[in-house]
Amino acid sequence: MGQLSELGEFGLIERIARLARRQSASRVVIGIGDDAAVVRPRPGEDLVVSSDAMVEDVHFRWSTQAPRTLGRRALVANLSDLAAMGARPLGFTLALSAPGTLPLQRVDGLLAGLLAEARQYDCPLVGGNLARAQQTSLVISVLGGVARGRALRRDALRAGDRLFVTGTLGASALSLARAERGAGAIRRVPVPRLRVGRALAALRGRGGCIDISDGLAADLAHLLAASGVGAEIDPARLPLPRGFRRGCRELGLEPQQLALAGGEDYELLFSLRGWTRRSLDAATLNRRLAVRVTEIGRVTRDAGLHGLPSGGGWRHF
Amino acid sequence: MGQLSELGEFGLIERIARLARRQSASRVVIGIGDDAAVVRPRPGEDLVVSSDAMVEDVHFRWSTQAPRTLGRRALVANLSDLAAMGARPLGFTLALSAPGTLPLQRVDGLLAGLLAEARQYDCPLVGGNLARAQQTSLVISVLGGVARGRALRRDALRAGDRLFVTGTLGASALSLARAERGAGAIRRVPVPRLRVGRALAALRGRGGCIDISDGLAADLAHLLAASGVGAEIDPARLPLPRGFRRGCRELGLEPQQLALAGGEDYELLFSLRGWTRRSLDAATLNRRLAVRVTEIGRVTRDAGLHGLPSGGGWRHF
Repeated sequence: MGQLSELGEFGLIERIARLARRQSASRVVIGIGDDAAVVRPRPGEDLVVSSDAMVEDVHFRWSTQAPRTLGRRALVANLSDLAAMGARPLGFTLALSAPGTLPLQRVDGLLAGLLAEARQYDCPLVGGNLARAQQTSLVISVLGGVARGRALRRDALRAGDRLFVTGTLGASALSLARAERGAGAIRRVPVPRLRVGRALAALRGRGGCIDISDGLAADLAHLLAASGVGAEIDPARLPLPRGFRRGCRELGLEPQQLALAGGEDYELLFSLRGWTRRSLDAATLNRRLAVRVTEIGRVTRDAGLHGLPSGGGWRHF
Repeated sequence: MGQLSELGEFGLIERIARLARRQSASRVVIGIGDDAAVVRPRPGEDLVVSSDAMVEDVHFRWSTQAPRTLGRRALVANLSDLAAMGARPLGFTLALSAPGTLPLQRVDGLLAGLLAEARQYDCPLVGGNLARAQQTSLVISVLGGVARGRALRRDALRAGDRLFVTGTLGASALSLARAERGAGAIRRVPVPRLRVGRALAALRGRGGCIDISDGLAADLAHLLAASGVGAEIDPARLPLPRGFRRGCRELGLEPQQLALAGGEDYELLFSLRGWTRRSLDAATLNRRLAVRVTEIGRVTRDAGLHGLPSGGGWRHF
């Protein structure tokens, strides 16, 4: 099937443009092929933007997942940032850097995965950049819209807030651990919590919010630092996936540690306030947010994190 | 002064956030430090977005320019894309990938250059990403706003349009040629034609527009292909910088060839129509656009480019 250098820069742009043309979103005024893309937000929307990189042998290995899975996971990581702001997707750009020897099969798989997720979450590819480089890397910049002044923030936790997490924790880390021990490729593609984020942004009593990309412990620490508060967490309440303890045992891993420090869950960690204990039962929240939500602790005036072992997230350099 | 690995990811984020905090733009609702940035466009604006990469040893060499110059030129390349759409800057994100051994002096120089241009053109740094990689690369995603439906396009050339170019051509290519022959570092930082672009977007009789990043010949070809037309160019009219011919002679280069095929001029190439010959004299345009503008040819119904030697632009892979 050949390699990237045979297709060339403009050949690849044409290929991408052809694939992306099948996307139809009326908000894209000018898509791929001009000096820049033009996207039309709704009247009164604030604009949300986030950029994220996935670098070969740093964030991913070709050996542990199919190119298509990689493409899907790359976009999900970015959509999750929109979810954490309470925003809806408007579109994304892709800056792909790669050696000329990159097999076209990988390029096509990557693109197929990206565009599959893009369709699913109505977030069209609108532009980007291609460059030669020693390592393959994808930088995605995602754009979103949120009702003016309603974006969810990291610095909005207040003492007394109750802390919640969506879904379950640790499944991505377990999937990665399995793949790295040679027990099959990573197949899991997390779900970006876009609907939950938007519902939260509209909720009275919303507090702060972050998406869990580096592990609960690390991302909770970011949230607390941004808000200048502390938290008390009940580790027994951490929501674990079905079969997770058994899966961990098989690999000799400690389930709670993996749920706390494992990255790429892309669940939302958020706080709520001003609800009575009764109005804020899990069933009501699940209904309002249309997702499983677990209360895991509360925000304290004292800085610091109580109830959790100190966990390490992913650090660069 | 140390290297990047000593500072670490979060140290570098703090350093960038501290530098960027000095920017003040009321349109930045949430800046560096959250899951995404939030920017507030003006009511009724379309949103413009472009992403561009600069990769070490592909787009730049540390040996031919100061880190500060590189930072300035990286942002200018992106601002020029906004100019070509007729947009005003809203803000930008920076995805910086680099080896841990990158000297902090280079990091600081880069950031200083980026932020100096950002201040000059009121385009604040609002977020980004840091990652470890073998090569240094900067991916900038720039956001702009343009009055709804007024964005300048590549596909809007019509037969009979008159073709214009701002400023002069070839200075960046000459500066690069000098630096590569060891005759001093690249110092030239092109000017993004933001004001011209916005004036053009508001002009009756505006046609198509592109910024000249790959050389006039290559970018004109893009413009013609997008619009499905041809052009006749008068090479004698190409506007050359003062002292350019002499500078080329000293290096044994052909001035017209360098002006046609040399990249990174970041002038605007655009077409106008429906003006009478008299109303469209250079003096009127210069006054309306507040910049030197030269008429270099006209758009023809026949595809193909007449009057120019076939020039090669920059190609990846």
